[in-house]
Amino acid sequence: MGREYVMELMRAAKLTVSIDAAGNIIGHRLGLKKNLPPILFGSHTDSVPEGGNYDGDVGSLGAIEVAQTLAENNIDTNHPLAVIVFQNEEGGLIGSRAINGELTEKELDLVSRSGKTIRDGIKFIGGDPTNLASARRKPGDFAAYLELHIEQGGVLEREKINIGIVEGIVGINWWDVTIEGFSNHAGTTPMDQRHDALLAAAKFIQAVNRVVTSVPGRHVGTVGRIQAFPGAPNVIPGKVILSLEIRDLDATKIETLYQKIHSEAEQIGKASGVTFDFKEINVNIPAPTDQRIRSLIADSAKELGLTTKLMPSGAGHDAQDMARLTPTGMIFIPSIGGISHSPKEYSRAEDIANGVNVLLRTVLKVDKAEM
Amino acid sequence: MGREYVMELMRAAKLTVSIDAAGNIIGHRLGLKKNLPPILFGSHTDSVPEGGNYDGDVGSLGAIEVAQTLAENNIDTNHPLAVIVFQNEEGGLIGSRAINGELTEKELDLVSRSGKTIRDGIKFIGGDPTNLASARRKPGDFAAYLELHIEQGGVLEREKINIGIVEGIVGINWWDVTIEGFSNHAGTTPMDQRHDALLAAAKFIQAVNRVVTSVPGRHVGTVGRIQAFPGAPNVIPGKVILSLEIRDLDATKIETLYQKIHSEAEQIGKASGVTFDFKEINVNIPAPTDQRIRSLIADSAKELGLTTKLMPSGAGHDAQDMARLTPTGMIFIPSIGGISHSPKEYSRAEDIANGVNVLLRTVLKVDKAEM
Repeated sequence: MGREYVMELMRAAKLTVSIDAAGNIIGHRLGLKKNLPPILFGSHTDSVPEGGNYDGDVGSLGAIEVAQTLAENNIDTNHPLAVIVFQNEEGGLIGSRAINGELTEKELDLVSRSGKTIRDGIKFIGGDPTNLASARRKPGDFAAYLELHIEQGGVLEREKINIGIVEGIVGINWWDVTIEGFSNHAGTTPMDQRHDALLAAAKFIQAVNRVVTSVPGRHVGTVGRIQAFPGAPNVIPGKVILSLEIRDLDATKIETLYQKIHSEAEQIGKASGVTFDFKEINVNIPAPTDQRIRSLIADSAKELGLTTKLMPSGAGHDAQDMARLTPTGMIFIPSIGGISHSPKEYSRAEDIANGVNVLLRTVLKVDKAEM
Repeated sequence: MGREYVMELMRAAKLTVSIDAAGNIIGHRLGLKKNLPPILFGSHTDSVPEGGNYDGDVGSLGAIEVAQTLAENNIDTNHPLAVIVFQNEEGGLIGSRAINGELTEKELDLVSRSGKTIRDGIKFIGGDPTNLASARRKPGDFAAYLELHIEQGGVLEREKINIGIVEGIVGINWWDVTIEGFSNHAGTTPMDQRHDALLAAAKFIQAVNRVVTSVPGRHVGTVGRIQAFPGAPNVIPGKVILSLEIRDLDATKIETLYQKIHSEAEQIGKASGVTFDFKEINVNIPAPTDQRIRSLIADSAKELGLTTKLMPSGAGHDAQDMARLTPTGMIFIPSIGGISHSPKEYSRAEDIANGVNVLLRTVLKVDKAEM
């Protein structure tokens, strides 16, 4: 239903609509110079369960609005343009990873929230999972990729800034940390005879926060999940498993923070008579945006009298996959209260209009620039 | 099977065996003076799942051995004697609470590990749940209660002491503590904008340990259970529920420690932008043993050349329920490595023999004393 609606809007904006083998919706517009690669821009329209109405939709409908505006004003570009609505961003950047070639055969068999496998989902929305290679693109196939998106954090609103110019999508490293102590009777084991894994975990969680906040920068570190075993009020926990996640634009900084945390953990372990074991679960490498495109976004905002701020994207986006193929830029607009992935997610109409106007001007500037 | 075996041993020790309405096994022996109330002694033979062979069994078989020794040596006592094997100690002191009248009708409908309700379990082992009042005893019905038990902690072994003279069974207070912060995206929420309930929980767990260890004494405080919500590596926890348990012989000390912990929680809450809510789940009031019986245990040990130490029992025992009815004494012997509720639970044969000899002498001393 939503996809049908979006395709109708695309056709109304004089775009030629197709669905690629991965299920991405692409609206094409010819350029004056047919031998130039297209400028790609868009976002996604899928949502997390219980999510809001702005994450992805602002950038997708904003991109169509840009095409509509060009059509209404009979503005031609040198490059062909391609407006894209990536499929299943929230379920693991499936559409954009099919395009940059990172999507694996194995992932196609994973069952998503819908109950369908990724493979069956692609078929269901009009793609062809047997022919994914046809959706794949290589460096040089696009002139650039641009994405407008809500910030999802509260920085722009708090600092009363109109436009965020994204420096890059942060890298995300996730470890599971296992702390082994010794489980014992909470009544008969004196305080000085304990090897309490949860007490050591408490020290560790504080150490993570201390290390992360002791270094200047916009990196973040989070312990979001914890389990204590056996997990009874009257038993000293003998084992704890918790998650550690660190995000930053700079993979070296993530590594430095991790080493500091690891070293603090070893000290806590020695002092508490417990052991720490770190297991790397997932690594997303940082995806910097293109310096030249950042400047063109800044110029566009300046012409419109809008204030800007360079900032990382703490959340993942399809732009991170496109950044591996082509020069990429990303435009943020304020999220009220920094709330996202929630029905309370909200962005003001004037902020959305500002973002779309910046996107429009940036598309035109990229078209004229020597990328 | 185990109960049949125990009853056979009782009969071999010339005891007259009966099962009371609560399912407790009692072996009676007449006294020279029929108007005196009986001296009760024993323990339990049930075990936690995956438990060991000493918790309860040492005291139960030791009590029968005392009766056997008296029979073999034709020793008569002034008081009648009653050897008791309480039923379902591990499942909530069911047998002893039926005797002191604390067992409620409502509890009878709880389903135990066996799959049976407590009510059906009592019927299954030969009791009569419709006539529990007949099992109930009042103050004055017994001259005294004595229980031999393994320590379950590692104090006696570590300090190379033969016999622990129990000062009392500690009170146990258990609260569930709910910490409410604000759940948010772990990538887009800067460190200084977070209301991380798990970080506050970590500070709280350390505060519990700091408060408990800052005061001299043998009290203990434990956080054994923790849950963080929503509990994903990429989401800042908005809510944590954890357990707080404090044990001491002195209810006033428990209250003082709790007030200190509560006040630290409020400070952490203010500093972290989270709230703490304490909900009392269970309170077992402390059960001191009888001062005169402690002296008689000490005298018995001294006569046998055994070293002793006055100590609290950090674990619960049937003795705590008997202490509400009658002067009560409890004798501990060393647990190797302080391990209990585990197949690795172990006490040396010579330590068990020491304990039984102390029990025998204490029974005889109590018989002669003016209690």
